[in-house]
Amino acid sequence: METKIVLKDSEIPKTWYNILSDLPNPPAPVLHPGTGKPITPDDLLPLFPMSLIEQEVSTQRFIPIPDEVRKVYALWRPTPMYRAKRLEAAIGTRSRIYYKYEGTSPAGSHKPNTSIPQAYYNKMAGRKRIATETGAGQWGSALALGASFFGLEAKVYMVKVSYHQKPYRRMLMESYGASVVPSPSGDTQSGRNILAGDPDSPGSLGIAISEAVEDAATREDTSYALGSVLNHVLLHQTVIGLECRKQMKKAGDYPDVVIACCGGGSNLAGIGFPFLRDKIAGSKNPRVVAVEPASCPTLTKGVYAYDFGDTARLTPLVKMYTLGHDFVPAGIHAGGLRYHGDSPLVSQLCHEGLIEAQAYPQTVVFQSALVFAKSEGILPAPESSHAIHSAIVEAKNADEEGKEKAILFNLSGHGFFDLAAYDDFLAGRLVDHEHPESKIREALDRLPKTGG
Amino acid sequence: METKIVLKDSEIPKTWYNILSDLPNPPAPVLHPGTGKPITPDDLLPLFPMSLIEQEVSTQRFIPIPDEVRKVYALWRPTPMYRAKRLEAAIGTRSRIYYKYEGTSPAGSHKPNTSIPQAYYNKMAGRKRIATETGAGQWGSALALGASFFGLEAKVYMVKVSYHQKPYRRMLMESYGASVVPSPSGDTQSGRNILAGDPDSPGSLGIAISEAVEDAATREDTSYALGSVLNHVLLHQTVIGLECRKQMKKAGDYPDVVIACCGGGSNLAGIGFPFLRDKIAGSKNPRVVAVEPASCPTLTKGVYAYDFGDTARLTPLVKMYTLGHDFVPAGIHAGGLRYHGDSPLVSQLCHEGLIEAQAYPQTVVFQSALVFAKSEGILPAPESSHAIHSAIVEAKNADEEGKEKAILFNLSGHGFFDLAAYDDFLAGRLVDHEHPESKIREALDRLPKTGG
Repeated sequence: METKIVLKDSEIPKTWYNILSDLPNPPAPVLHPGTGKPITPDDLLPLFPMSLIEQEVSTQRFIPIPDEVRKVYALWRPTPMYRAKRLEAAIGTRSRIYYKYEGTSPAGSHKPNTSIPQAYYNKMAGRKRIATETGAGQWGSALALGASFFGLEAKVYMVKVSYHQKPYRRMLMESYGASVVPSPSGDTQSGRNILAGDPDSPGSLGIAISEAVEDAATREDTSYALGSVLNHVLLHQTVIGLECRKQMKKAGDYPDVVIACCGGGSNLAGIGFPFLRDKIAGSKNPRVVAVEPASCPTLTKGVYAYDFGDTARLTPLVKMYTLGHDFVPAGIHAGGLRYHGDSPLVSQLCHEGLIEAQAYPQTVVFQSALVFAKSEGILPAPESSHAIHSAIVEAKNADEEGKEKAILFNLSGHGFFDLAAYDDFLAGRLVDHEHPESKIREALDRLPKTGG
Repeated sequence: METKIVLKDSEIPKTWYNILSDLPNPPAPVLHPGTGKPITPDDLLPLFPMSLIEQEVSTQRFIPIPDEVRKVYALWRPTPMYRAKRLEAAIGTRSRIYYKYEGTSPAGSHKPNTSIPQAYYNKMAGRKRIATETGAGQWGSALALGASFFGLEAKVYMVKVSYHQKPYRRMLMESYGASVVPSPSGDTQSGRNILAGDPDSPGSLGIAISEAVEDAATREDTSYALGSVLNHVLLHQTVIGLECRKQMKKAGDYPDVVIACCGGGSNLAGIGFPFLRDKIAGSKNPRVVAVEPASCPTLTKGVYAYDFGDTARLTPLVKMYTLGHDFVPAGIHAGGLRYHGDSPLVSQLCHEGLIEAQAYPQTVVFQSALVFAKSEGILPAPESSHAIHSAIVEAKNADEEGKEKAILFNLSGHGFFDLAAYDDFLAGRLVDHEHPESKIREALDRLPKTGG
């Protein structure tokens, strides 16, 4: 059997898979932060084009991928799936480990799977600009790339501390032609208000969201774009799992367990939802595992409740696993997993027992990342390394139980922008952060009282 | 027609193409630096395993690629070839532009095409360690990766100024398990001698070569490895062009011109030699173009003469285009192209009119790099961007002449480790360096008087 399982360009999916069509229970409504009543599509129109709002609520099982989007996908898709034989040998397991590699996209992660269609739909709707926020810069780079492909302007509000600490990501966005400002910025009222109170504010994802939303809401030619959490974002990511299904079939196998790291939830949904469909239908019984950092244990230690998406309490209220909208996770190196909440869809499926969650501290995650890099050759992103570590644990557990499992994980991106983290790990400077239960309880006490 | 032209794993070449079998004239002998007489294979045995020395002098046209090497190649090979339709549209040309993309390797460039077989042959010969030098770090990362795949130790002498300026590359090598020291180091006599005279020496490629050669020559378990220039290195890189021939055939086209950047010459040889074979045979007449930086114009302003490969005059004398072994090129951002000499094979073919050479200053190269990034999505390495710029110039010239050409270039690597250079360019801080003719003449006056 080949180590690398590839597909032809003609096998790039022609539709995305919409799990809303197969949910055992209807999703909890999204509530207006002011009225506490369910929001309507019209409420969202200042921020998103109608095509994306329709995808957000559609219950159609398969949604066509526009030809123009497929053509851009084809620049790097279908992505390879590997049988990790060298990793298996390195850890001495009898299980079969597979991984899907999304780091071959020009931005280096799975994020362009949604930034490309988001840019396309905005172009079709006649918008000229897209505003977004970015923390570590992974999403901002993907959005800058998408905007560049469709001739849109991109404005990225980058959390100020990251803007200064991760200049390479900022430079990549600018190379694609995006305009990047450190947030809080003087370009929005929200930013100016923060700066008036604290000129040295390091910024936060919550503040950057407020700035990007304000930018989009106050300019008719501009939309807002989000890189995870929302239903349409997760929808776009299902190309990953749809390809994987075909690749597992070519490998003559089916995964006993499907693993991905989970921050907002989009890469987990991307690889997991097309397999969850079998589980919901009862035709197969794969375990789907979300892996999060122990320092931001949303699914493992949070509660399933209505909460705000941002610290500043400006977004609609969504029902999700949350640590509280003002919970501040420790500054770990997997910046893409530092979110207090989670996608409502992933949260619901977790709550209903269809998805499992695991949490690991970062030092063991980096250990596994290096075992992977030295055996498979690819330097993984710290976020993706959570999935690697879980896969290794699953394989070792199976060995102990005398079982042979088929384990599939999503390698969502490469770690070329994260080498400082590896350096810290190799030099013994990396430490684990677990928040005391009391800190989590305090944040949860401040949850809004609204809704179910 | 598809934008991306891919091959199956079964189409990864089973042999490398050895242009020594087809040279119109025999190559000039390599001379011993002490005696001035041709060196023998035995002279090289302390540095290289016999299998690589045999490849260095073989005149067999096709040399089999070992299965173990092909299996590792298959982790990222065959690499895609693209029809650059978006770039063509962006510059408004009627010519057809194709590019082969080597940045999908785990180290991000074409360099693993030779580091993998070099590690393999050393493993087979029972060597335990490999010593090498690296400037910007591209080659060092590839060698560290190769060593990791075959369980060898790697020791990398990294030019001290780069060691401090480009920590990400150092960290990547260490993540693969290599030991990296700033050169001059205290680990060799050569290094200690330099440090005794100048404790603050910033190092140079010449010094780092001396250290790595000494390390290998003085330890029986250790070989030396080089990332370009030598015949066997160029041989390994021909997988690029051999794949490209098949891909051009699938595209139903044949290149009028084949372009690559040229430092030591390995990526030019890799894509160019398999097409040059047709030219030498007279069956086709492709132009093969080497593109170098105007600040290090070896092929365009150097002389074809015997010279040392290093500044310290320790290496054998080879006949090549050279700017003089003590020529110090300006500190441009395409670090991989800052070499005073050139591969003897590329030099000979250039001297005999089978290869053309062009030189461009870096600012126009970065302009073209951004046109490419915004249209094709991939952020190119500054080195590879020289080939992009030449392809754009060729296309525009063809348009002016009312011709439609098929232009193929090698995109030898991505630019994720070079974003500071893009930042300098975008901020207007990048300047061009052309050396006055007098500086080049002075360096050439110091060429050794030995040999033909």
